[in-house]
Amino acid sequence: MRTKSNFNGDDHLYLQVAEGLEKMIAEEVLRIGDKLPSVRMLSEDYGISMGTAFQAYYHLEGRGLIESRPKSGYYVRFNHRRFPDLPNTIQPEALSHDVSVKEMINSIYTDIAAKEITNFALAVPDASLLPSAKLNKSVVYALRNTKDHCVNYELTQGNLELRQQIAKLAFNWGGKVKPDEVIVTSGCLEAIMMCLKAVAVYGDTVAVESPTYFGINQAIESLGLKVVEISTDPVLGADLVYLEKAIKKFRIKACVFVPSFNNPLGSCMPDDNKKKLVEIITKHNIPLIEDDIYGELYFGKNRPRTCKYYDTKGLVMYCSSLSKSLTPGYRIGWTIPGKFLEQVKQMKRIQNISSPTLTQAAMAHFLKNGRYEFHLKNLRKALHTQSLRYVQAIIKYFPADTKVSRPHGGFILWLELNKKVNAFKLRTEAMKHHISIVPGKIFSAGNNYSNCIRISFGKPWNKEVDEGLMLLGNIIKGMIH
Amino acid sequence: MRTKSNFNGDDHLYLQVAEGLEKMIAEEVLRIGDKLPSVRMLSEDYGISMGTAFQAYYHLEGRGLIESRPKSGYYVRFNHRRFPDLPNTIQPEALSHDVSVKEMINSIYTDIAAKEITNFALAVPDASLLPSAKLNKSVVYALRNTKDHCVNYELTQGNLELRQQIAKLAFNWGGKVKPDEVIVTSGCLEAIMMCLKAVAVYGDTVAVESPTYFGINQAIESLGLKVVEISTDPVLGADLVYLEKAIKKFRIKACVFVPSFNNPLGSCMPDDNKKKLVEIITKHNIPLIEDDIYGELYFGKNRPRTCKYYDTKGLVMYCSSLSKSLTPGYRIGWTIPGKFLEQVKQMKRIQNISSPTLTQAAMAHFLKNGRYEFHLKNLRKALHTQSLRYVQAIIKYFPADTKVSRPHGGFILWLELNKKVNAFKLRTEAMKHHISIVPGKIFSAGNNYSNCIRISFGKPWNKEVDEGLMLLGNIIKGMIH
Repeated sequence: MRTKSNFNGDDHLYLQVAEGLEKMIAEEVLRIGDKLPSVRMLSEDYGISMGTAFQAYYHLEGRGLIESRPKSGYYVRFNHRRFPDLPNTIQPEALSHDVSVKEMINSIYTDIAAKEITNFALAVPDASLLPSAKLNKSVVYALRNTKDHCVNYELTQGNLELRQQIAKLAFNWGGKVKPDEVIVTSGCLEAIMMCLKAVAVYGDTVAVESPTYFGINQAIESLGLKVVEISTDPVLGADLVYLEKAIKKFRIKACVFVPSFNNPLGSCMPDDNKKKLVEIITKHNIPLIEDDIYGELYFGKNRPRTCKYYDTKGLVMYCSSLSKSLTPGYRIGWTIPGKFLEQVKQMKRIQNISSPTLTQAAMAHFLKNGRYEFHLKNLRKALHTQSLRYVQAIIKYFPADTKVSRPHGGFILWLELNKKVNAFKLRTEAMKHHISIVPGKIFSAGNNYSNCIRISFGKPWNKEVDEGLMLLGNIIKGMIH
Repeated sequence: MRTKSNFNGDDHLYLQVAEGLEKMIAEEVLRIGDKLPSVRMLSEDYGISMGTAFQAYYHLEGRGLIESRPKSGYYVRFNHRRFPDLPNTIQPEALSHDVSVKEMINSIYTDIAAKEITNFALAVPDASLLPSAKLNKSVVYALRNTKDHCVNYELTQGNLELRQQIAKLAFNWGGKVKPDEVIVTSGCLEAIMMCLKAVAVYGDTVAVESPTYFGINQAIESLGLKVVEISTDPVLGADLVYLEKAIKKFRIKACVFVPSFNNPLGSCMPDDNKKKLVEIITKHNIPLIEDDIYGELYFGKNRPRTCKYYDTKGLVMYCSSLSKSLTPGYRIGWTIPGKFLEQVKQMKRIQNISSPTLTQAAMAHFLKNGRYEFHLKNLRKALHTQSLRYVQAIIKYFPADTKVSRPHGGFILWLELNKKVNAFKLRTEAMKHHISIVPGKIFSAGNNYSNCIRISFGKPWNKEVDEGLMLLGNIIKGMIH
């Protein structure tokens, strides 16, 4: 325990405490993700008032070094000594073109099966972060308590209780949604696919962010649609001026955007931009398919709003799922497709009649009992800590010119590497060492991002991850020289 | 117990016994589905030799009145007194045209939810015929014994153990299939949809049977494909001469046929015709999407072969599921798409990445333990009996000019009513009495079958079914006069 004698005057006491803590962070005595003492403990420890202790934390928080987490206290957030630059925004060729990314993606999903791989490629939270025991309980409950033990078809639109729970989830982003407005799907990608089919036909043009999730590009290609890529900023999301220009140039029939914690950039469009985006698409009467799959995985105090929140004309077709936040294997997604409800329901019926009865009933039970909200609180904290640990390792192991995104949610990092690096070769090389990453090129229909990679930080920090990133860093260093 | 004195000479003994039994059937002392005494009991009962008893049953079997069921004995099969005519074969307009059946079908699936309805519309076996307790056990087993309790994505191609079991099922129709050739889907319709997407593009023309399952027509329409309807016989299935003519006239890019126990006709294409069909499509290099969803539900002694059995060039894309034979609610289907394997796998990935992990693992366990084969034996018997009971009631309650299909498998009857009957009006009228049927018009893209209806006999015979069919008969009688 220290005494007041360490300090030279009450006015700067909080600054001195803060500086002391900052030094400990810089020297990694306090590491990213570590919990700081409570305000009361700090005050007792340094022999300062509670107010001064609070001021010290407030100061450090303002500098981005620590953060408060609701009902939990303060945590080390970042070590600013060598913060890498952000990846560049690319202005994609302003031409609509056929998507052709098929060949490139085929190899990625085979990683699912590989067991001995350090998988930075698959964008899912690690199974250890998922509440499988409680999920099991909900399955057994559903088996016992659903009519005919779930052997019958569920409604095409989906289990009513599950839709009630999904409608309730919309409260989180300020939405007022009725269960009748929701359609349950087999994952978010199916929801996007069906929304696309409901509003666009062969040969139509669709706007997407650049870079964007390759599944979206593939869905568009498979329907014979063309794509216009909209320049997207790693912090602010899609460039709305660029979008308006594209709308003037092309007959855009729909937009498919991931406004919150975009995959792969991690960018989160500010609420004002979301509002503006909805104004633009409303003015031009263009449906917006909003992929909000990462929306609940925010690291900040508040959940970001959705575009759907600002929708007045039923043009926003909201899509989400539990695959990124609870369980990929259950394949539970949904859409709230506004005025296109009947068309999308029709598409669901034609595709596979309905989603499985059992998994829907189980999820309804899980959500109804507040287990999802409880789980999310823990998951957000874990992912936030993981994001910081991963970035720190990248700073440590990767070349100094590596540029890294700063996601405030989700579990994906976007890295822009030295121009000499061919990310496809990097992937091949890394796979020889049983490490998988996703090359950036597949996130665009054009010939962009060939020196970019996506890294998932869904896996909790451990020795394997540390060694994996070190190895990856070394491979990259070798490719530059 | 009777004595030998009842009979006039040994030569005709068996005939006399047979005639006695026939009279009892005609007078409905012995009703359809009733079990007859064993050969030993008959011999003791009538005081005749075992051989004579056997001859009597053999004679009645030859006349189609009774049937032997393997390891079970003899059953009353039919009352021939007033056997109705078969529905007519229609020669559909030999023009390819856009499908437009959407509006007509919307109302049908809403019946799933309705609880107080006597549902002759939904083509599924009644839940009471499904082994839900054993299915539950397999689910619990899968939860406990699958890696990470099924929270992770399954492979796009599907659970390996399940694919092994599906490959084993192919033995039943003589197929030699490797697990690597199978792709698991969310039901058979999804399999058909993905096969179609793999081999046809917007604007292409596809051949289907007429009438055919409306889901097939909708899948075709939703992909922007055109359709050519092939005349189909209620007994022999698709008219192959007609098909060859159509191939000459149109650029047919694929066929989608239901060769065994076609929905709605119930026709089963003889094996020789299947062979011929495969020869035709092979000659013209046209992929055949074979929907074999009813294949396991045969009433005879042997499972019908499949077209896939005769396939030498990988052109037959076999599709099936467990929805009609085990559990619709689990949404487990599959395809064995021959040389189009990679394309179809790609489509599955784009649509919904993979099917749920849990339901696949549960089905793998269920099949592996021989529970499916055991269940099928019981289900086939039950459905056969139900088919006969339903037909008998239709003969009894419906107008004499009603024509009825004679399915030898599945659980669907196709009825051609008096030309005065508008089946859409009949459906509306029947729904007022809480009875649902499917009007025939939706089984064709053209303007056919307006006086036809489809009735499912998936529901075990009971008072409600009896009264429902009586009421339906009365409504039809009212519409004729």
